[in-house]
Amino acid sequence: MKVVFWGREFLRLKEIIAGAFSGHDYFIADPEADGDSLGTAEMLVVRPMKVGDEFLSGAPALRLVQQWGAGAEGIDLGACSRRGIFACNVPSLGTGNAEGVAEIAFLHMLLLAKRFFRAQEKLLEGKVYTPPGITLWKKKGCVLGLGNVGRSITSRMKAFGMTVAGVNRTPPGDGGAAWGVDAFYPLEEMAEAVRGARFVVCALALTPETERIVGDSLFSAMDRDAFFINVARGPVVDRSALERALDGGGIAGAGLDVLWEEPHRTDDPLLANPRVVVTPHIGGVNDASLEGVLRFILENADRLAAGEPPLSCLNGKEMERKPT
Amino acid sequence: MKVVFWGREFLRLKEIIAGAFSGHDYFIADPEADGDSLGTAEMLVVRPMKVGDEFLSGAPALRLVQQWGAGAEGIDLGACSRRGIFACNVPSLGTGNAEGVAEIAFLHMLLLAKRFFRAQEKLLEGKVYTPPGITLWKKKGCVLGLGNVGRSITSRMKAFGMTVAGVNRTPPGDGGAAWGVDAFYPLEEMAEAVRGARFVVCALALTPETERIVGDSLFSAMDRDAFFINVARGPVVDRSALERALDGGGIAGAGLDVLWEEPHRTDDPLLANPRVVVTPHIGGVNDASLEGVLRFILENADRLAAGEPPLSCLNGKEMERKPT
Repeated sequence: MKVVFWGREFLRLKEIIAGAFSGHDYFIADPEADGDSLGTAEMLVVRPMKVGDEFLSGAPALRLVQQWGAGAEGIDLGACSRRGIFACNVPSLGTGNAEGVAEIAFLHMLLLAKRFFRAQEKLLEGKVYTPPGITLWKKKGCVLGLGNVGRSITSRMKAFGMTVAGVNRTPPGDGGAAWGVDAFYPLEEMAEAVRGARFVVCALALTPETERIVGDSLFSAMDRDAFFINVARGPVVDRSALERALDGGGIAGAGLDVLWEEPHRTDDPLLANPRVVVTPHIGGVNDASLEGVLRFILENADRLAAGEPPLSCLNGKEMERKPT
Repeated sequence: MKVVFWGREFLRLKEIIAGAFSGHDYFIADPEADGDSLGTAEMLVVRPMKVGDEFLSGAPALRLVQQWGAGAEGIDLGACSRRGIFACNVPSLGTGNAEGVAEIAFLHMLLLAKRFFRAQEKLLEGKVYTPPGITLWKKKGCVLGLGNVGRSITSRMKAFGMTVAGVNRTPPGDGGAAWGVDAFYPLEEMAEAVRGARFVVCALALTPETERIVGDSLFSAMDRDAFFINVARGPVVDRSALERALDGGGIAGAGLDVLWEEPHRTDDPLLANPRVVVTPHIGGVNDASLEGVLRFILENADRLAAGEPPLSCLNGKEMERKPT
């Protein structure tokens, strides 16, 4: 099985990939230098990127596009199905992905709540017991998106003594109890859900429906002392609206593990905005997730080689109607 | 009632103290400039500091020494009792103190686990999906001290999917279940408890028994990839032993919300140590705790003025034998 890891970022994982994929004919491709490796790939492992008709036309041997992680919004499922190509992601819960992203959400909440950068300044000035921060305890949190990540955030918020409003496209049917939220709101009532929340955490999957769904109307519904945290995907948020809310004092600050362009521009003004903390999309980049994701992808490679259908297939129904 | 807030740090809270204590004759004293205010104080509110015989001899009208917060290790209870002075602290659970300190412990764990400072460097280099961190999820945490703070940390660790070893002087009598720990160890078996733990969090009250209890033997029992976090008091830790463990690679890093000298020296080499994150004792410095602590102290002032015994008295038994 010719397995191609598509992206220079995978070179960092060279040794661990070598250890795991020794039973396959694997290759780590730098798209700029090794573009022709696409022509022979049977399984392609991708980071978030656009995989559409044009791209697939250069991969005639391809049988499986495998997302590295959960968010596979860049993969055109219809285009894959038409070519008889499986499109798969890695389930995020229990692989260290959802758990790691929830932890990054807490890192951002705590950095903002405790005014960490200000505390570092005070420290260097020789000051103690300052700056005063806020507790998460007894505050209201609002979680946008109750998938694996959102629910992992919710359960941790509850343990921190927060009340949680949860927003999701589909309702749980029980008022939200099964998801651990204190109050459930459908997507169209998002602006109601954020009222009174001190922390609004975005964990929405990026789809055509959710693109730029977090915009002016949401930010103006948020309290002026509230923090907005995005651990989902940049494009879920209307960047200009966020900048307006930050600059106009509509919200108190933002914590972003994801940006609109990745890799980002180093002169992106958000990196220098004192009300904003940015991390370079590291939510899912951890020991547990590396092991969990790699083990899952290896199993899919093995299954494909053995003629079995791959796991966590996103276009399974369409593919059942096709010869593979 | 003459209530004296003893310390320049209280000047930052001038307005909120003024609002709460308008019914009393209160004064915020800078000890260097306003030393004579001690002579007329009936109630003295202190930050962590030494309150012994010599100090008390300058306070002939004093009836109550009130710690601002939970840790009252600086107050000589015997000296207070001999003079018929109540010594009180503020219970930490439910006032925002224990909860806030637990949150600072998590901030430190997450900063170290996610390699936050390295991530900021990578960000400025335009890199994404790096540096790889570790999850708290599925790791073992060890909590030293199972008072209100330790138990607040424990319950949050459980929600993060960690297993928790708990260390305390007195055993819970049920294997630790009542305190939420997976395994309980008495103080003398501390070195056993930390084995295999990736995060060791110190929440021990400072007493003569616990002074410098965290030393060479504990650090050498810790795993080399483990992080040590101190949210208790500096002197619980043998500073030289910590520095040896950090410099010799005996442990991976440290997160400290408390130091040995407070205020600290701005040229303290620990502030510049790349394996160490320091915050300026802000665990209990938050909105909830400010409100909770102030409300509690006001109630004690009111009780004293009304001739009632104050709450959370640390030398209650001794005082019962004295005329007040």
